[in-house]
Amino acid sequence: MTNSSTTPDQIIQQLNWRYATKQFDSDRKVPDDVWTALEQSLVLSPSSFGLQPWKFFVVRNPSLRQQLREHAWGQAQVTDASDLVVLAIKKDVGAAEVNQFVDRMAAVRQVSPESLSNYGDMVKGFLAQPPYPIAMDSWATRQVYIALGFLMYSAAMLGIDTCPMEGFDLAKFNELLHLPEQGYSAVVLCAVGYRANDDKYADLEKVRYPIETVVGYCD
Amino acid sequence: MTNSSTTPDQIIQQLNWRYATKQFDSDRKVPDDVWTALEQSLVLSPSSFGLQPWKFFVVRNPSLRQQLREHAWGQAQVTDASDLVVLAIKKDVGAAEVNQFVDRMAAVRQVSPESLSNYGDMVKGFLAQPPYPIAMDSWATRQVYIALGFLMYSAAMLGIDTCPMEGFDLAKFNELLHLPEQGYSAVVLCAVGYRANDDKYADLEKVRYPIETVVGYCD
Repeated sequence: MTNSSTTPDQIIQQLNWRYATKQFDSDRKVPDDVWTALEQSLVLSPSSFGLQPWKFFVVRNPSLRQQLREHAWGQAQVTDASDLVVLAIKKDVGAAEVNQFVDRMAAVRQVSPESLSNYGDMVKGFLAQPPYPIAMDSWATRQVYIALGFLMYSAAMLGIDTCPMEGFDLAKFNELLHLPEQGYSAVVLCAVGYRANDDKYADLEKVRYPIETVVGYCD
Repeated sequence: MTNSSTTPDQIIQQLNWRYATKQFDSDRKVPDDVWTALEQSLVLSPSSFGLQPWKFFVVRNPSLRQQLREHAWGQAQVTDASDLVVLAIKKDVGAAEVNQFVDRMAAVRQVSPESLSNYGDMVKGFLAQPPYPIAMDSWATRQVYIALGFLMYSAAMLGIDTCPMEGFDLAKFNELLHLPEQGYSAVVLCAVGYRANDDKYADLEKVRYPIETVVGYCD
């Protein structure tokens, strides 16, 4: 069993260090080895049944980012951070995506797709009739937010700043990034980079409810 | 600025070590100092505007967990893991929750609530008219999935196993845990503990799409 060399204190320190960065230092770029780890964090994010109903679009082109910013309430993070990640769902996930995943599972684990047919049928059954009423795009969106969490968390552990953003014109983003024709739709943004020295939000105390307000015991 | 002592390799190692644990060792309990860090990870999770539209219910009582298991497809994780966390949204978030948050912000940052009234009005405006059509409970659910990600990630960093679960009878869980009368509704479960030595899923290779399938560049 792999054990960890990270201590509880290290984690809490980095999670307290993290904040939603408003002013990024536009001169600082995330180094390649760190970026690779952030990308891998997205790849390794868990999702329901492991289906990965998502794609993560990285935008670095400055003029494209300027255009996007105009449809994101003018937020400076869109243009000033080292990298902009647009987290998107796969639209209308269904039997085709389950088959694709089963094929991938068979290839990775070196078994026949036929040996996984019961598993595939079970997943299709869940998606066709979930235990509670939910549209597939809503279900996929939930999964994307796990990946958003993993991206922000990895960044915090590596001393990289992030800012998640929900305030943007969905239709315009989809259009500018050509997502619908690829079967995707944007759901949330995450700017990634380094806080500016003068971001006044960096020194504000984090506002959280007392633990007894947000954690309850049902015993 | 706090920097990190964690390397990209450490992160990737722990994220690869993580998997959705099916068989937990029911004899092993998460130590108090580790549990405290996991709780703090939930408290420190980011959410839109920092509103924390959530509560995390920890269930340890064995007979209650047995009852819950019967409404979760009989999944053994519900009873066998050290701890069961039921992640819940605050229902119908609106102006009252914004006022509560502004009061908290004023107290933590030692400013007057009046000095934050513009901020409060801006948040109320967003919630009343989001940039895309979304029900408040769906919006809150998205935030809860960030917290789910933070919980699983912290656990992985500390060598603790988890299993996220969407397959459960929502109405029954809400009823057994008395959530509706407190203004909450369950959205997802996370079992927390230690993998059993004989969990055959532990040794299966992780199935992920190639990075070029899930990460795209829009430059």
